Amino acid sequence: MIIVLRPDASEEQIDHLLSRIREMGLTPHISRGIERTIVGVIGDERLIRERSFQSTPGVEHVMSILKPFKLASREFKHDDTIVHVNKVEFGGNKIVLIAGPCSIENPEQLMKTANAVKAAGATVLRGGAFKPRTSPYSFQGLGEEGLKLLDEARRATGLSVVSEVMDTRDVELVARYVDILQIGTHNQHNYALLKEVGTLQKPVILKRGLSSTVEEYLLAAEYILSRGNNQVILCERGIRTFEKATRNTLDISAIPVLKHLSHLPVIVDPSQATGNWRLVEPMSMASVAAGADGLMIEVHPEPEKALSDGAQSLLPEKYAHLVSQVQLIARAIGREI
Amino acid sequence: MIIVLRPDASEEQIDHLLSRIREMGLTPHISRGIERTIVGVIGDERLIRERSFQSTPGVEHVMSILKPFKLASREFKHDDTIVHVNKVEFGGNKIVLIAGPCSIENPEQLMKTANAVKAAGATVLRGGAFKPRTSPYSFQGLGEEGLKLLDEARRATGLSVVSEVMDTRDVELVARYVDILQIGTHNQHNYALLKEVGTLQKPVILKRGLSSTVEEYLLAAEYILSRGNNQVILCERGIRTFEKATRNTLDISAIPVLKHLSHLPVIVDPSQATGNWRLVEPMSMASVAAGADGLMIEVHPEPEKALSDGAQSLLPEKYAHLVSQVQLIARAIGREI
Amino acid sequence: MIIVLRPDASEEQIDHLLSRIREMGLTPHISRGIERTIVGVIGDERLIRERSFQSTPGVEHVMSILKPFKLASREFKHDDTIVHVNKVEFGGNKIVLIAGPCSIENPEQLMKTANAVKAAGATVLRGGAFKPRTSPYSFQGLGEEGLKLLDEARRATGLSVVSEVMDTRDVELVARYVDILQIGTHNQHNYALLKEVGTLQKPVILKRGLSSTVEEYLLAAEYILSRGNNQVILCERGIRTFEKATRNTLDISAIPVLKHLSHLPVIVDPSQATGNWRLVEPMSMASVAAGADGLMIEVHPEPEKALSDGAQSLLPEKYAHLVSQVQLIARAIGREI
Amino acid sequence: MIIVLRPDASEEQIDHLLSRIREMGLTPHISRGIERTIVGVIGDERLIRERSFQSTPGVEHVMSILKPFKLASREFKHDDTIVHVNKVEFGGNKIVLIAGPCSIENPEQLMKTANAVKAAGATVLRGGAFKPRTSPYSFQGLGEEGLKLLDEARRATGLSVVSEVMDTRDVELVARYVDILQIGTHNQHNYALLKEVGTLQKPVILKRGLSSTVEEYLLAAEYILSRGNNQVILCERGIRTFEKATRNTLDISAIPVLKHLSHLPVIVDPSQATGNWRLVEPMSMASVAAGADGLMIEVHPEPEKALSDGAQSLLPEKYAHLVSQVQLIARAIGREI
Repeated sequence: MIIVLRPDASEEQIDHLLSRIREMGLTPHISRGIERTIVGVIGDERLIRERSFQSTPGVEHVMSILKPFKLASREFKHDDTIVHVNKVEFGGNKIVLIAGPCSIENPEQLMKTANAVKAAGATVLRGGAFKPRTSPYSFQGLGEEGLKLLDEARRATGLSVVSEVMDTRDVELVARYVDILQIGTHNQHNYALLKEVGTLQKPVILKRGLSSTVEEYLLAAEYILSRGNNQVILCERGIRTFEKATRNTLDISAIPVLKHLSHLPVIVDPSQATGNWRLVEPMSMASVAAGADGLMIEVHPEPEKALSDGAQSLLPEKYAHLVSQVQLIARAIGREI
Repeated sequence: MIIVLRPDASEEQIDHLLSRIREMGLTPHISRGIERTIVGVIGDERLIRERSFQSTPGVEHVMSILKPFKLASREFKHDDTIVHVNKVEFGGNKIVLIAGPCSIENPEQLMKTANAVKAAGATVLRGGAFKPRTSPYSFQGLGEEGLKLLDEARRATGLSVVSEVMDTRDVELVARYVDILQIGTHNQHNYALLKEVGTLQKPVILKRGLSSTVEEYLLAAEYILSRGNNQVILCERGIRTFEKATRNTLDISAIPVLKHLSHLPVIVDPSQATGNWRLVEPMSMASVAAGADGLMIEVHPEPEKALSDGAQSLLPEKYAHLVSQVQLIARAIGREI
Repeated sequence: MIIVLRPDASEEQIDHLLSRIREMGLTPHISRGIERTIVGVIGDERLIRERSFQSTPGVEHVMSILKPFKLASREFKHDDTIVHVNKVEFGGNKIVLIAGPCSIENPEQLMKTANAVKAAGATVLRGGAFKPRTSPYSFQGLGEEGLKLLDEARRATGLSVVSEVMDTRDVELVARYVDILQIGTHNQHNYALLKEVGTLQKPVILKRGLSSTVEEYLLAAEYILSRGNNQVILCERGIRTFEKATRNTLDISAIPVLKHLSHLPVIVDPSQATGNWRLVEPMSMASVAAGADGLMIEVHPEPEKALSDGAQSLLPEKYAHLVSQVQLIARAIGREI
Repeated sequence: MIIVLRPDASEEQIDHLLSRIREMGLTPHISRGIERTIVGVIGDERLIRERSFQSTPGVEHVMSILKPFKLASREFKHDDTIVHVNKVEFGGNKIVLIAGPCSIENPEQLMKTANAVKAAGATVLRGGAFKPRTSPYSFQGLGEEGLKLLDEARRATGLSVVSEVMDTRDVELVARYVDILQIGTHNQHNYALLKEVGTLQKPVILKRGLSSTVEEYLLAAEYILSRGNNQVILCERGIRTFEKATRNTLDISAIPVLKHLSHLPVIVDPSQATGNWRLVEPMSMASVAAGADGLMIEVHPEPEKALSDGAQSLLPEKYAHLVSQVQLIARAIGREI
């Protein structure tokens, strides 16, 4: 940590600051420049971050040297983490294809979609049973009934399944039915929920929050990792910006940034990001070209009748086309599907 | 709802669209312009929002006519809602002053602050017992022990108290100790939690999400209202933008916008918004000048030793000065403190 | 400047870095911590900023210690700058009221508005002759003819006048007719134009760019100041964010931030910021409460017939009401209009 | 255009609105729904956009039906525009590689880079002579001397050349030396400059503004097209968001969005967007996978000594590697380099 002093900081204020640093068991290191005096603080920055020196008299500003996350960092664990879900590997050479409807609506819709995405090459089936909807008047999901349908689809197809959990009270329930738990974008900062899924030994897809920085995102992963669950899969799904031509702005550069900073696998959800089925295929191709380890895509047999997110859902035949295009990119860079 | 057709939409596609609209019990109203044909849909838009016409063949885009919230709207309830908390009224002529530490740390810190803010004019004491911290390594709050200290401070001072709840499982517990429940900025989209506090008959301060639009914010209020709890207090606390000179950008224009669209009281938290104690006083004055019904401010007897948010906490004497300045503004516009 | 080294930086890389620093006539100051080695660079940071150490091998990241602007900073000039325009003072105790139509349309419209805003208390008349319009098909302004009308209005009313210049080739022309030149939000980064107005001895209202940080904004002022023109008036006018309930988000906290960092006067344009006449009055009041030195407001005798920006223009009687409300705030804080 | 009336709009207000619409030579089309009455306006929306109905009494809000740009739209011109620059085609099957230093610094630096990028496969050389720098104290470019060096490099290598113009007064000068003029991100809204380059018959690379929506961006292109210059090449180069892990956020989804809305070629500048050389290669691959027609990349023989943008400049050997990777992607999707 570097503390920059105000140009008018008095010697008394500097002494006070130095003694506060020493009180915390840390070592100050003073350096007097021409326009500013700065104090380096030697010791574990993660402990002192807490105590803000910002309000200590004479201080102009405080700068961190280290990233605030540890277990999620590549510095802590150099090699890529591979998360195993049955026979599927997230973070290996194979690109994992997750697909399915936004919401589970009924047995026919789910089975039809499951069979179609499996035929196209997907190995994981997605389907929402508990739905985080902006409006209380929108379809809120089938709840446990939806999870049961998901379980049936798993048995029938052999696909692994993932579904979102939104409430700490439902974690156990959802975990009973699915292979992978999903934390949605609106819950990236729901620390109670992160702590709860951190106690399980089950893979978690942690979606990036709508307005979360990469650093905050990795701190959310750190919440789960620090509780003992190290099967975290990151998922970029678009951030909120001023641009409204797309629902969100897919931050594809976050893929190599996350890969550089962290050892965790990184997948992408281009459906949620763009909100527009026409953009899902090119954004899938771009994501894989940029290094994504997987794709999570909304598919619906009749998008115009979907109870949620119809505008961004692909018809099964469009999804099959997408997979063929993604495969071309994957092969070009030496990866498989 | 207005549906704009693509210039190349076929008559067949238009017929299909019209029959889908009629199937839903709604009435289509077609209008052929020079460059585009548009279809108005007559009926309750809130029901059809669900079924996206965006993916119906021949459709270019879909525009809503009505705001998606109802109970929160001034159209639904013309007169200002006044939320009563003991003798305090939110939304009346008096501006409500809420103050206290970011986190409850120990009995001395809390009592010292409580007495000081009461002396300065505050009528509600804030204090966090469950803390939503970005890092898992930061102080997470004292939990129920903190709530007990808050309760003691209430008895000793007669101040009403507010504290945050982060987990659906803690709603009952927190509600037992406090006069007002707070939903923090990171939980504005935590729909499970919104539903849970919606079942209580207890005032709720609902903070605006970091990247929530005004419309989404009022939909979050609608979640609570639609469950039967109509004691919702809105709280603008800064939004995330590109600007980093302040922690967030306090959206003061949201105050008159919210007042125009909704009947609910609107308060402001300038401490969280700015992240800098120097800015808390001018932003408090500006908020009241723009029509805010209250102010929520962080005060700490020793900001440099605060376990959280020291940089933005005011010393008690600075808070007293702030109150005197806010009073000047309040009087100028015919309001009281 | 602080250079943070990668944990795996070799001694050779460190030696190379230190010799590069010395080559530039600067002094390195090395400090070895537990997790990172950092190098402080002593000397004029503004010179070295240029040469990015970011790409030097072994470097993790580089942090600046000083603000990059100098002449605009309060550190350089402690006392408030007062910009004199005839009898009007920007930055003194009096709050300056600038008002007038978005575009100058014809003699009647301008004179009618000029008389009305003067009667209400304004001392400076605004009116656009060269208009920066998003669409090439929108009204582009009357050009020099508009400036002549403005000049006539000045003679008739005794008001000082301000108008925007958009093209380096027009600077001399516009300067001939007006008391104050305006650089619009879209030209805050038009460095050729900034340099050009920097060579004049004439006041300049420099509007903040739509997506400019406070730091970049003060650097734009620095362009003008560094060419010798020290009569710069800053003008906050809303920044672009995700929120669309208002045209832009008025960043009222920028007022005290700018006042803290710089000695230059700061005014606010709530018309451009909100794009909605209903919000102009509360935002004017808030701006003055937060410390603004002036207000620039769009007034039109018939907003619904305005050739530009009708939605945010005030009728003269609404403007007079606004002035009376702003006066209440100004008096409350010991300022005048 | 659709005008939504307030629920309390009087018949008198509606009549007034309808007669104002008719006065403009347009046809109103009224539709009374259950909660709102709406008025469709039939006629050329681009003309009426000007006259805001927003401030007409009784109006709640106004919605556009058509995109405001015309010449730039794919509706106006269905087939892809191909911009020819000597033997290079922008918008054809071949992906155009533009590369070179951020700033032209001296003959050796430029020639060394030109030869290296040509060897790697680039066909256009970039190099800044007039530099838009955030700080007035930063290197501002060599001006005409730089253009002469660029011209020499062109003769020596046979590469086409592109350089930025920032001032209307320099358009003729720059056009004399280069094959393609560049309008930089800070000048996307510099309408005087757009009009000026619109009068030339010379290709223009128009970079997207830092906070420009896709719609505003295409309107900026419309300025150039509407003056008669139809050789416009669009260039996505990152937008400003809250995320600071990258210098800007490269909006890769803008590539297919622009291609869908417009017939103009679209290239990408991943160097400016990311500000980090490590990210340039994956973002180049992603851009081509998403459909980009070209890449503009900063290359410098000694990035750590670059007078500008060293942090994002690639060494020639790294650039050669990038080209080989991009080639794999291009081939996979049936395109060439």
